[in-house]
Amino acid sequence: MIIILKPGVEAREVRNLTENLESQGVTVNPVYGTELTILGLVGDTSKIDSSRVEGNRIVERVMYVAEPFKKANRMFHPEPTAVVVQGRKIGGAELAVIAGPCSVESEEQITLVAEEVKQAGAGFLRGGAFKPRTSPYAFQGLAYEGLRLLKHARERTGLPIVSEIMSAHDIEVFADAVDIIQVGARNMQNFDLLKELSQTRKPILLKRGLAATVEEWLMSAEYLLAGGNMQVILCERGIRTFETYTRNTLDLSSILAVKKMSHLPVLVDPSHAAGKWWMVPALSKAAVAIGADGLMIEVHNDPDHALCDGQQSIKPEGFRELMKELRAIAQAVGRQI
Amino acid sequence: MIIILKPGVEAREVRNLTENLESQGVTVNPVYGTELTILGLVGDTSKIDSSRVEGNRIVERVMYVAEPFKKANRMFHPEPTAVVVQGRKIGGAELAVIAGPCSVESEEQITLVAEEVKQAGAGFLRGGAFKPRTSPYAFQGLAYEGLRLLKHARERTGLPIVSEIMSAHDIEVFADAVDIIQVGARNMQNFDLLKELSQTRKPILLKRGLAATVEEWLMSAEYLLAGGNMQVILCERGIRTFETYTRNTLDLSSILAVKKMSHLPVLVDPSHAAGKWWMVPALSKAAVAIGADGLMIEVHNDPDHALCDGQQSIKPEGFRELMKELRAIAQAVGRQI
Amino acid sequence: MIIILKPGVEAREVRNLTENLESQGVTVNPVYGTELTILGLVGDTSKIDSSRVEGNRIVERVMYVAEPFKKANRMFHPEPTAVVVQGRKIGGAELAVIAGPCSVESEEQITLVAEEVKQAGAGFLRGGAFKPRTSPYAFQGLAYEGLRLLKHARERTGLPIVSEIMSAHDIEVFADAVDIIQVGARNMQNFDLLKELSQTRKPILLKRGLAATVEEWLMSAEYLLAGGNMQVILCERGIRTFETYTRNTLDLSSILAVKKMSHLPVLVDPSHAAGKWWMVPALSKAAVAIGADGLMIEVHNDPDHALCDGQQSIKPEGFRELMKELRAIAQAVGRQI
Amino acid sequence: MIIILKPGVEAREVRNLTENLESQGVTVNPVYGTELTILGLVGDTSKIDSSRVEGNRIVERVMYVAEPFKKANRMFHPEPTAVVVQGRKIGGAELAVIAGPCSVESEEQITLVAEEVKQAGAGFLRGGAFKPRTSPYAFQGLAYEGLRLLKHARERTGLPIVSEIMSAHDIEVFADAVDIIQVGARNMQNFDLLKELSQTRKPILLKRGLAATVEEWLMSAEYLLAGGNMQVILCERGIRTFETYTRNTLDLSSILAVKKMSHLPVLVDPSHAAGKWWMVPALSKAAVAIGADGLMIEVHNDPDHALCDGQQSIKPEGFRELMKELRAIAQAVGRQI
Repeated sequence: MIIILKPGVEAREVRNLTENLESQGVTVNPVYGTELTILGLVGDTSKIDSSRVEGNRIVERVMYVAEPFKKANRMFHPEPTAVVVQGRKIGGAELAVIAGPCSVESEEQITLVAEEVKQAGAGFLRGGAFKPRTSPYAFQGLAYEGLRLLKHARERTGLPIVSEIMSAHDIEVFADAVDIIQVGARNMQNFDLLKELSQTRKPILLKRGLAATVEEWLMSAEYLLAGGNMQVILCERGIRTFETYTRNTLDLSSILAVKKMSHLPVLVDPSHAAGKWWMVPALSKAAVAIGADGLMIEVHNDPDHALCDGQQSIKPEGFRELMKELRAIAQAVGRQI
Repeated sequence: MIIILKPGVEAREVRNLTENLESQGVTVNPVYGTELTILGLVGDTSKIDSSRVEGNRIVERVMYVAEPFKKANRMFHPEPTAVVVQGRKIGGAELAVIAGPCSVESEEQITLVAEEVKQAGAGFLRGGAFKPRTSPYAFQGLAYEGLRLLKHARERTGLPIVSEIMSAHDIEVFADAVDIIQVGARNMQNFDLLKELSQTRKPILLKRGLAATVEEWLMSAEYLLAGGNMQVILCERGIRTFETYTRNTLDLSSILAVKKMSHLPVLVDPSHAAGKWWMVPALSKAAVAIGADGLMIEVHNDPDHALCDGQQSIKPEGFRELMKELRAIAQAVGRQI
Repeated sequence: MIIILKPGVEAREVRNLTENLESQGVTVNPVYGTELTILGLVGDTSKIDSSRVEGNRIVERVMYVAEPFKKANRMFHPEPTAVVVQGRKIGGAELAVIAGPCSVESEEQITLVAEEVKQAGAGFLRGGAFKPRTSPYAFQGLAYEGLRLLKHARERTGLPIVSEIMSAHDIEVFADAVDIIQVGARNMQNFDLLKELSQTRKPILLKRGLAATVEEWLMSAEYLLAGGNMQVILCERGIRTFETYTRNTLDLSSILAVKKMSHLPVLVDPSHAAGKWWMVPALSKAAVAIGADGLMIEVHNDPDHALCDGQQSIKPEGFRELMKELRAIAQAVGRQI
Repeated sequence: MIIILKPGVEAREVRNLTENLESQGVTVNPVYGTELTILGLVGDTSKIDSSRVEGNRIVERVMYVAEPFKKANRMFHPEPTAVVVQGRKIGGAELAVIAGPCSVESEEQITLVAEEVKQAGAGFLRGGAFKPRTSPYAFQGLAYEGLRLLKHARERTGLPIVSEIMSAHDIEVFADAVDIIQVGARNMQNFDLLKELSQTRKPILLKRGLAATVEEWLMSAEYLLAGGNMQVILCERGIRTFETYTRNTLDLSSILAVKKMSHLPVLVDPSHAAGKWWMVPALSKAAVAIGADGLMIEVHNDPDHALCDGQQSIKPEGFRELMKELRAIAQAVGRQI
């Protein structure tokens, strides 16, 4: 951590700040410039709350040298982490493919899609039971009945289930019903939910927030890890920019940033990123080429009549085709699918 | 609602879609162009889920003519709404000023600041008990003890209290302890929390999300209104842009947009927007000049040692000075303070 | 300037880099941390090209302590600069108001609007002769004939003229025809144009780029100052964000940032920022309240039939009304209009 | 084009607007809703200036149904365009790879890099002679001497040359010296330069602006095409977002958007997008996987001492390695390299 002081600060004030910082266990190295003074901090600065330092009126700015997260940090955990779900690894040489409809609509629908995606090679089934919708008047999901239907689809196909949680109230039900609990983009900084989830031992799929930096995303992962839940899977799903042609802008360089800064596995959701079904296959190929640990893809048997997000869902036959095409790309980058 | 169809769509498919839409209670007017066909929908389109229409493969795009919210919409409720809290109006000619520290730190601190801001003319006391922090290692607030201290400060000063809720678990405690429940920017689309809050009869202060459009913000207000809680106060607090000099970019034109589109009162929080205490007075003046219904300002007796956000807190003497300066601006735009 | 080195860098490499830097006239203070080494540079770092330092493979990151501009920097020029145009100060206690149509359309139009805005109290006349249009098929301005008509309007009213230049080819014509040469947002980083304009002695109105940080904007001003043209006026006109309700997002905090970092005067253009005429009055009031040195407002006698930007132009009577209302705000912040 | 009228508009006003529009050669179909009236325009709306329509006070909003560009539009030119440069196709099955240093620094440097990248399989040589630098104090390029050295490198290697133009003054010199004239991101909306370049018969490489939508990018291409220069190559180089870890955010979905909306070939520049050399190989693979027509990559023999952008340049050996790895990806998507 580096602290830039305001011009014209008195020696006494610098001494006070230095003592205060050193009492928190770090060593302070001052560098006196012609106009400004900077303090270089050496030691474990993760215990120092930078926003408190910035509140000090003699401080101009605080700059991080190392990332402010510890347990998610690759510097202290160089080996990549793989999360194992029902014997399937997420984060290894084999790519994890999660597929299924935006929302569970009926027993027939979810079972049909589950069987289709399994046959095509998907390793996990996704399906929304509780849906975060911008409008209170839009379809909000089948709720607990949706979870029941997902369990039924798992029994039929053996595919582990991923579904999004929207309230800490439901943690027990989810822990019982699903194999991976998804935290959606809008809840990435729902810190209360993160804290409660950090107490479970279920794998968590943490989507990147709509306007979250990679660092903030990793800080949210840190909430889970700090609480003791080490089974964290990240998922890039596009960020908000000024571009309106796509629903969001898929930030594939974030995969490289995550891999550099953290040891956690990271997937890509091209469906929510683009918001256009016809972009999904090409974005999926790019995601595999760049080194993502897997994909999360919306597949629906009848997108024309889907209760949500039909415009970004591909059909089972398209998914089958895509899985074949992905094989060659995976191979070219030393992965399997 | 206007629906643009793909080029080369068959008449039969247009007929099917038209019938489906008309069965939902609207009238469909087709306009046949040389390359494209568009359908103009007349009637109450708020019941039609546009994302479902977009899922249809013959549909190119769906465009809204009217805003997708009803109860928050000024078109159907032309008179501005004022929320009355302990006899004080938010949304009338008199500006509402909410002031206080980022977080409650001790009985002495909160009482002192409460008395100072009251004397300076603030109408409400703010103070965080539960703090949404990016880092799990940062101070998380005094929690229930913080709420107790706030109540004590209210007893001493008579100022109504505003504090942020982070979990639906705490609704009852908040309903009992505070006068206005704040929903923070990071929870603006925590739909589960919004639904539960829509069932209380406490006024809600709904902050704009970090990267939320004004329309999405009003859709979140609609969640509260649709559930029956009509006492909604909006609060602009800056949005995320590429500019890094300020913590966020205060979007004052959003005040004008809200006033045009909605009847709800709207405040401005210059402290979180700028993230720099020395910007707060000038931004406050601009907010009053543009027609905001009030301000939410961080005031701390000792920002150098504040447990959070000291860098954006002004001191009681600065707040006193500001209140005086705001008077002339308020008067110039036909308001009082 | 602070240089963060990669972990595990060899002493020899650090020595090489240090020697290289010190040969450029600065002193290097190393701070050795447990994981990382940082180098604090003391002296005139403006001569050091940070992007070259970042190219060095042992360097992790370069961070600026002081701003990378010199002549535009308030640190080295604490007194605010006023630009004097035909005896009128831009940057003093009196606010500069520039008003007029988006584009010059005819002699009658520009003369009429010039007389109207003069009567209402404007100090300068704006009018586009060369128009930067997104579409090659849109009206591109009357070009040299437009400049001729502007000169004619100046003769009639005595108002100094502001008009946008689009090509270095035209510098001589502009230097002869107008009083202030405007560089539009899209040309803020047209460095060739800036270099050529730095050689003239005409005042330059430099608009902020659509997606430029305040620092980049000041670096573009530095191009003008470094070349010897000290008469630079800045103009905030909104930045691009995800919000689509307004054409751009007016960033009023940038006025405060500019005033802190630089001595140059800065105006606000609410018309281009909002893209909606009905927002212009309130945004203008906010701009004055925050401390802008003046305004640039689009006024058109017949916006319904304007050849460009009619949707953001107010009418002469609206402008007259606004000028009256601005007086009280100006007075409240110690300015005149 | 669809025009939404304000509520409560009089029939007479609608009639006037309708007549005005129909006199411009389109047919107007009104749809009368309960609250709003919309006008659907049928015919060639490319001649109608939407910003003029929006200026009309009875108009609430104008929405495009078809894209506002013609010659760049795939709807009217379904076959993809290939630009042929010295017998090499850009836009065909074979990928175009442009490689070379950020800036030409010396005869040895450019010749060495040219030979290295040729041997590795690059089809074109890039090298900056005129450099757009944020700071006036940074290295600005070798200018005309740089062009001379590039020509020399072409003689030695036979590789066609790409270099960036910064002023319309230099068009003749560039037309003589280089094979493809590059328009940089900061000049994407330098309309004067675009108009002048539309008069040459040299291929133009048009980079996407830092904050340009895909539509605006294609409108800038339209300036070139409308003037008669049909040899336009697009190049995605990242857009500006709130994320600061990378220099820009590479928007790979824009490749898919361009391919859908336009017939023009489109390349990807991963070097400027990421601003980090170690991200270049993986981003290149993703670009090929998604279907880009080629790459533009910065290669420098000694990035530690490069005069600019060393931090984003890979070395010749890294480039060689990358070219090999790209082959398998290209093959997987039906392309060659």
